[in-house]
Amino acid sequence: MELIPLGTSSASIVRDRGLTAYVLRNQGKVFLFDCGEGTQFRLLKAGVRRSRIRAVFITHLHADHYFGLFGLLISMSLERRKSPLMIIAPRELSDILQSFSGLRPADLPFKIEHIPLEEGLEFQEVYMADGIQVSARPLVHGRFCMGYRVERADQVHRIDGALAASLGITAKEQFQRLAAGQSVRTSGGQVVAPDQVRKKSGAVFAYVTDTSPCPGGLELARNADLLVHEATFGQERADRARETGHSTASDAALTARNAGAGRLLLTHFSARYKDLSVLEKEAKAIFLNTEIAEEYQAYPITSRKDMPQTDPAA
Amino acid sequence: MELIPLGTSSASIVRDRGLTAYVLRNQGKVFLFDCGEGTQFRLLKAGVRRSRIRAVFITHLHADHYFGLFGLLISMSLERRKSPLMIIAPRELSDILQSFSGLRPADLPFKIEHIPLEEGLEFQEVYMADGIQVSARPLVHGRFCMGYRVERADQVHRIDGALAASLGITAKEQFQRLAAGQSVRTSGGQVVAPDQVRKKSGAVFAYVTDTSPCPGGLELARNADLLVHEATFGQERADRARETGHSTASDAALTARNAGAGRLLLTHFSARYKDLSVLEKEAKAIFLNTEIAEEYQAYPITSRKDMPQTDPAA
Repeated sequence: MELIPLGTSSASIVRDRGLTAYVLRNQGKVFLFDCGEGTQFRLLKAGVRRSRIRAVFITHLHADHYFGLFGLLISMSLERRKSPLMIIAPRELSDILQSFSGLRPADLPFKIEHIPLEEGLEFQEVYMADGIQVSARPLVHGRFCMGYRVERADQVHRIDGALAASLGITAKEQFQRLAAGQSVRTSGGQVVAPDQVRKKSGAVFAYVTDTSPCPGGLELARNADLLVHEATFGQERADRARETGHSTASDAALTARNAGAGRLLLTHFSARYKDLSVLEKEAKAIFLNTEIAEEYQAYPITSRKDMPQTDPAA
Repeated sequence: MELIPLGTSSASIVRDRGLTAYVLRNQGKVFLFDCGEGTQFRLLKAGVRRSRIRAVFITHLHADHYFGLFGLLISMSLERRKSPLMIIAPRELSDILQSFSGLRPADLPFKIEHIPLEEGLEFQEVYMADGIQVSARPLVHGRFCMGYRVERADQVHRIDGALAASLGITAKEQFQRLAAGQSVRTSGGQVVAPDQVRKKSGAVFAYVTDTSPCPGGLELARNADLLVHEATFGQERADRARETGHSTASDAALTARNAGAGRLLLTHFSARYKDLSVLEKEAKAIFLNTEIAEEYQAYPITSRKDMPQTDPAA
């Protein structure tokens, strides 16, 4: 798997950064995470063929995360796409698409399969095909917003027995529930989530934006090999980050550290930061393996087989 | 006045041309003609402040001509715009804006004054402020589509008496009707339109896209100092142009010649034309003062006071 950032700015547009969009490529298939205005042009520039896109995952319905979807769908229509397109997004998106002539089901030569996400959901498996499985968890952003976690489908339900035992999981029934994706409570009263005890045998990607630090973000990021996390502000604007449902670079780094992530890419930068090294430096003081997400650069997502499953400091 | 093309491609997106959008600048005020996806980024690149935009003129509701409007409105909202924005566009646009949370009247800190254009209109004055007057006429594009003509407001109703007399206009009542913007029939049975006999004292800009050759396009272009006319195809694809409601470079040049325009800018190029010189050459054989519209170049629009009012060959 590899990840290509296409847009790393927050909502206020700037000349040299694009609005939010990420390409995840796995075995020749393409998955798009968010789709801000201009994404289809950025796909062209990155040399990513839109016909390869199998699914689009939208985190939330703020303009900078989905206004590029309409034009992308029109371009798919103009090129007479036949294969269905999955769109994972809040339910309201269907009503919006319905309001456009050209984007209604009868207007399109291909089928849109919208997996509608409902406000209030705690955990949902939203995609299982093409060798990957994607799950969603809620973030904290004022508006209903989801983060996503991508894993190889063949490894999702394998539980690391030794790791589970070390956390107090002893009964067979507990193992079975964990393997089915449910949390269990140990005899000691501790809640253990499946993500905490999964056998690590392939690369994991976590996508956490837009959000204040929250449990959903932490769970999505757990043991991820690559964590893309928003860092709209630096710590000097922590108040502003809280008011607007965003994270600072320090917040992102703490989540990476506490979740035992392998590598952190910061993104979704406020227009106020011309020089991003200040954000990188702030995060690195907490989590060393941090980088600024560079648009059009391909980041390989590789498994850390020899890494510990959880950060002992967490 | 000056014109800055921001996007000169037709609907199929390409790497090196943008979707349709034009900036008209007059005395520090900005008017936008069409607003394809990505226009707000192109405004930034061109150094045109969106706060200066007074009105947006949309020709028709095909994606490549208006999908950039949504993001532009959001950006105006984020920067707390206060002054109203006029939008001249088909009526259906209001319903589309209404479907977006964030773009409804109650969501915006400024007022959108939508001048709704109704299918079937023949001629409409759509804007008179800021020293310009803009009129609309229908084009022929399958879907309801308007072209626009921009004139200095102080000169719109002045009739050139000598020119009118030469066309057989003699009665005072005929002059009055022409001055009021109505066509008249001469005693010889000829119909004379107001645009044919206007006194020429300032620059005129005409914007004709998307369309097959048609009377509306010709009237809009009459004596225009600068005519922007679509040339989606070359003459070798004339059949395709007719089928899709578009023009060839030859069509555009014939309209320019027959209308007595001063200068022709070709635009709205099909993705099939990598080298546009073939379209330029084709048009120049019919109308010499033809150029390919270059994105981000400023074209001054100046009056040709010494030019004849109509082309004798027309």
